[in-house]
Amino acid sequence: MIIIMERNATKVQIQRVIDFLKDNDFQVRHNVGQVHTVIDAIGDKTTITPGRIAAFDGVKEVKIIREPFRLASRDRKPEDTIIEFSNGVKIGGNNKPVVIAGPCSVEADYGALLEVAVAAKEAGCEFLRGGAFKPRTSPYDFQGYGEKALQFMKRASEETGLLTVSEVMDASELPMMLDYIDILQIGARNVQNFKLLKAVGKCNKPVILKRGLASTIREFLLAAEHIMYNGNNKVILCERGIRSFDSAFTRNVMDIASIPVIKKYSHLPIIVDPSHGTGQRYLIEPMAKAGLVAGANGIMIEVHNDPENALSDGKQSLPIPMFKDVMKRINKFMDLIKEEEVAIR
Amino acid sequence: MIIIMERNATKVQIQRVIDFLKDNDFQVRHNVGQVHTVIDAIGDKTTITPGRIAAFDGVKEVKIIREPFRLASRDRKPEDTIIEFSNGVKIGGNNKPVVIAGPCSVEADYGALLEVAVAAKEAGCEFLRGGAFKPRTSPYDFQGYGEKALQFMKRASEETGLLTVSEVMDASELPMMLDYIDILQIGARNVQNFKLLKAVGKCNKPVILKRGLASTIREFLLAAEHIMYNGNNKVILCERGIRSFDSAFTRNVMDIASIPVIKKYSHLPIIVDPSHGTGQRYLIEPMAKAGLVAGANGIMIEVHNDPENALSDGKQSLPIPMFKDVMKRINKFMDLIKEEEVAIR
Amino acid sequence: MIIIMERNATKVQIQRVIDFLKDNDFQVRHNVGQVHTVIDAIGDKTTITPGRIAAFDGVKEVKIIREPFRLASRDRKPEDTIIEFSNGVKIGGNNKPVVIAGPCSVEADYGALLEVAVAAKEAGCEFLRGGAFKPRTSPYDFQGYGEKALQFMKRASEETGLLTVSEVMDASELPMMLDYIDILQIGARNVQNFKLLKAVGKCNKPVILKRGLASTIREFLLAAEHIMYNGNNKVILCERGIRSFDSAFTRNVMDIASIPVIKKYSHLPIIVDPSHGTGQRYLIEPMAKAGLVAGANGIMIEVHNDPENALSDGKQSLPIPMFKDVMKRINKFMDLIKEEEVAIR
Amino acid sequence: MIIIMERNATKVQIQRVIDFLKDNDFQVRHNVGQVHTVIDAIGDKTTITPGRIAAFDGVKEVKIIREPFRLASRDRKPEDTIIEFSNGVKIGGNNKPVVIAGPCSVEADYGALLEVAVAAKEAGCEFLRGGAFKPRTSPYDFQGYGEKALQFMKRASEETGLLTVSEVMDASELPMMLDYIDILQIGARNVQNFKLLKAVGKCNKPVILKRGLASTIREFLLAAEHIMYNGNNKVILCERGIRSFDSAFTRNVMDIASIPVIKKYSHLPIIVDPSHGTGQRYLIEPMAKAGLVAGANGIMIEVHNDPENALSDGKQSLPIPMFKDVMKRINKFMDLIKEEEVAIR
Repeated sequence: MIIIMERNATKVQIQRVIDFLKDNDFQVRHNVGQVHTVIDAIGDKTTITPGRIAAFDGVKEVKIIREPFRLASRDRKPEDTIIEFSNGVKIGGNNKPVVIAGPCSVEADYGALLEVAVAAKEAGCEFLRGGAFKPRTSPYDFQGYGEKALQFMKRASEETGLLTVSEVMDASELPMMLDYIDILQIGARNVQNFKLLKAVGKCNKPVILKRGLASTIREFLLAAEHIMYNGNNKVILCERGIRSFDSAFTRNVMDIASIPVIKKYSHLPIIVDPSHGTGQRYLIEPMAKAGLVAGANGIMIEVHNDPENALSDGKQSLPIPMFKDVMKRINKFMDLIKEEEVAIR
Repeated sequence: MIIIMERNATKVQIQRVIDFLKDNDFQVRHNVGQVHTVIDAIGDKTTITPGRIAAFDGVKEVKIIREPFRLASRDRKPEDTIIEFSNGVKIGGNNKPVVIAGPCSVEADYGALLEVAVAAKEAGCEFLRGGAFKPRTSPYDFQGYGEKALQFMKRASEETGLLTVSEVMDASELPMMLDYIDILQIGARNVQNFKLLKAVGKCNKPVILKRGLASTIREFLLAAEHIMYNGNNKVILCERGIRSFDSAFTRNVMDIASIPVIKKYSHLPIIVDPSHGTGQRYLIEPMAKAGLVAGANGIMIEVHNDPENALSDGKQSLPIPMFKDVMKRINKFMDLIKEEEVAIR
Repeated sequence: MIIIMERNATKVQIQRVIDFLKDNDFQVRHNVGQVHTVIDAIGDKTTITPGRIAAFDGVKEVKIIREPFRLASRDRKPEDTIIEFSNGVKIGGNNKPVVIAGPCSVEADYGALLEVAVAAKEAGCEFLRGGAFKPRTSPYDFQGYGEKALQFMKRASEETGLLTVSEVMDASELPMMLDYIDILQIGARNVQNFKLLKAVGKCNKPVILKRGLASTIREFLLAAEHIMYNGNNKVILCERGIRSFDSAFTRNVMDIASIPVIKKYSHLPIIVDPSHGTGQRYLIEPMAKAGLVAGANGIMIEVHNDPENALSDGKQSLPIPMFKDVMKRINKFMDLIKEEEVAIR
Repeated sequence: MIIIMERNATKVQIQRVIDFLKDNDFQVRHNVGQVHTVIDAIGDKTTITPGRIAAFDGVKEVKIIREPFRLASRDRKPEDTIIEFSNGVKIGGNNKPVVIAGPCSVEADYGALLEVAVAAKEAGCEFLRGGAFKPRTSPYDFQGYGEKALQFMKRASEETGLLTVSEVMDASELPMMLDYIDILQIGARNVQNFKLLKAVGKCNKPVILKRGLASTIREFLLAAEHIMYNGNNKVILCERGIRSFDSAFTRNVMDIASIPVIKKYSHLPIIVDPSHGTGQRYLIEPMAKAGLVAGANGIMIEVHNDPENALSDGKQSLPIPMFKDVMKRINKFMDLIKEEEVAIR
């Protein structure tokens, strides 16, 4: 790390920092500038964190050189992580991007879920999504049907052959969910719920981790690191829009550039969710394509058999006929770009 | 709510929205403008949410008229909520603002904690803060000493008479924490951890709820609503800075105006945390005063007996001698402004 | 517009708003809700602006129904605006997307500019960009070579047949620039320099208007409206990234979704600038493609014959050999997607 | 500056950077880490800018050590800048904070302006503000009365003894404005209109420079630097709120902490504008006080004799009777805190 001292830092202050670092087995060199003294220190940051040095009197700023994520880093593991499922589907690397489709929430009528699942299967999707536990901004909104919804998901999976994705909101629900679901999802609002990241890290299940509304790319990868640090390497990142100053036309701003950035710095697969990313039905198709051409390993789309009566997120769900049309064009587009040279690193 | 139809919405689309609302016992009136048709609907939004109407074809936007929080709203309860503790300390209303001080994390040495606690008591503080479970961006950072830290907190409380505040990160830790702690804290990263909000809502303990880095004021009050909806009305809000585009000089931007805004729309008490809000020791005093003059019911300050060796947040902690000086000036300032007419609504 | 009164608005306050609107020839209807009174008013907002009504006592919020831009609106002009140049090149509608390439700043050596121009021509670009007047955050940075640079641009245009684009920073430079340049550019920092917008509005030259770092889509279209209102309809919008909370890996966040949003609400063409949008050479290609697939009518790319010695923006400029490779793939990509059905409205 | 090389940077790439810096008379030292090589370079950044080094192959990041503003920096000039006016009023340092009050725009009726001016004078204000040229987001909004408004301002100044402040939008208006006005104002939207900054830098008039909606503190000080670099040192900074993700209750977020930050790093005076900062009448008083206690050298408040008929910004203007009450409390508050020890650096 690099320590930049305040302009008026005293010799004693500078020496205290140097001595402390040396006492902790850091290699230290310093450079007395006309204005600022700069100290380079190489050593084990798990014992001495940058924040600790920042607290010394006279320190203006501590700059980390090496990215703080390790297990998630491409430095550590240059080849792409590929997650393979029992039925042969693979996510990551140069495999065909996957499509995950389904309703925001699983609702009371199994037939409605099955109708979506059949449409998804016919459209070439690999995964069915559906919420059983819903994080809702207001306590007055629908909170999900819980285990019953998961039973429906499993049944739809058995009938169609689709694998399933559903969100986990609390560690206590994990054991039950593992019976029903093929991929666990951690929602944007839980991206720094570290107890949940830890619990999921101890499962042997793939996890879709959604970027938080205010997560930097670095924090997003550190959230993945929490899961990997606890033993689970099957992390699929998901860009789903960040919060900006403009929400008049789109709920969030999709940070499409984060896809090639993350591919450069991490080996983990990343997918995009244009439904949550924009909140607008008409933006799902162009933003799915934009994500794919930028290198996404998959897309996640909300579909509902009757969006006007959806218990959540109807505005951003595709009705089934529109979904079929969109998927036709997206499948064609995936074919078109499959031989695109990926020259982005 | 008000439903604004798209410019090219058809008569059939407009009629479908109107019929649906009427079938659900809404009073409906509509206004066919030159460009847009606007529908006013009055009724019970717990059955038909705005999102559901938004999903109808031809709807451009649904605008809520009434704020979505209810129990937290001053409309519902015009008088200030005041939370009283066993020793007579009161938070809220026109009571003297409280001061909560202590280390970011409780560390291994009880003597260090006691030293801070004694200094806090002597400086006129009412509460001792100290983390036992630490939410950390990186898994490689110190995660807190857990129950042992809580035992230290209780011991320091008994020796000084200060009441205690500590963060809860997971519902499973709640029963144990209730034995040791006088105020539970929910951190900024958990402000939309709805399972935790619900669990804390079922306790009969005061809760400090910190604003999330990307929480709007409305979402912040809806997070409080989750707690109140589950039965716990003793919610103390805490402004601790939001994320902005500039983090070169301060970690976050403190939204001081949120204090009078929240006082206008809610009856709940609100305090400020200038340590986390700025991340800089030298900004604690001016921002504490700015919060107080804007109407805050208290302040929360990080103090450490040896910030350079703090296991977390040393940069934003006051060393004890500086804390004593700052408190002298803050106490004097609270006296100065105590008779300020509050004319802000 | 819709006027939402405060919960505690008095009858007199409500009546004063209604009377004022009626006196100004608005059609007014109001709806007394349980909590809030809502007033619908239809009339000429050029005489009575929403801000004026907002200032009445008892008014909580004034909501505009109709988008405030008119000339730029697709409501007013449903067909796409297409801008045609003397040599037959067309920007907008279903025409092949254009490519604008060139150095950030024109520098002292004409040969260097020509080298880039020749490479651009050979790669199939239609326009050469090059700055003569540079808006720079610091006064110590290179400010551009002024008229001499424009002379170089014209000469390179004559030698290659490329049309030219250069930024205007002040109305006083306009008359001189009109002699040299085919498209005027207004930079992100001047997007609300209304004197400049007005002056450019009085020219009969196409204008590329860049989105400001903090411009909402609505403000961006209103900036275009200033130009059109003064008589110049040849406005080409340019998405070039907005400011977010994360600038560790990219200078800005490119708001790719703004392209289909703007296409829905406006008839103006829109291009993307992935060089400024990301600030990173390796992100130019994927983000150019993402913009194109989302519907952009063109791309703008920084190219330099010797980026390491560029006087500005070297980090985000492609060196010529890399530019040639990127253009090969982008040309192929434009062919691939040219028959993509655009089904995004 | 510090140059951090990419992890996979080659020896040749590293050597090229080092050689280039040495050739340009930089003192260079480098540190080959396990992962990244770090180069320290000390020299004249006006010849070799950080951006130029960033463009070298293999460079990950260039970190500036010294703040890029110089004339505005407290390093260069440790004592506070104090601006003195003909009538003895002083802005800056430990002088009593000034109050600038008046309507957003000067309107057609001189009597209305005089009424506000008299109220301001009686309330102890030193300056009258009033817009003659208005930057407006929409071309359909009122654009100001121009020179006639300035004549009114001068007349009101002569009648009351108040000094005057008005916004300049374009260099071409400067010569005319200098006859009428005591302080020029540069609005938030022009904070990076470098031609205007330069023109104002060549005047010998005090300037209020408003922070842009998306200006970082560093960019804000660099905008001041542009003015100073051109010869005018009489710059008064003005915090007036920045853009955030939440505009439901306040137009902008006032960054009160920027006041003590700027006082630490710059010698320039800084004032606050709670009218624009919040957009809400009821927030003016608490935010003015918050700014003052954080160290502001003055406040700027919008006052209108008839806000409901104001041609701009009525919602955030105080009507005269309310203004008188607010000023009574603010004057008392300024007395209370005048002996506050300022211990913030």
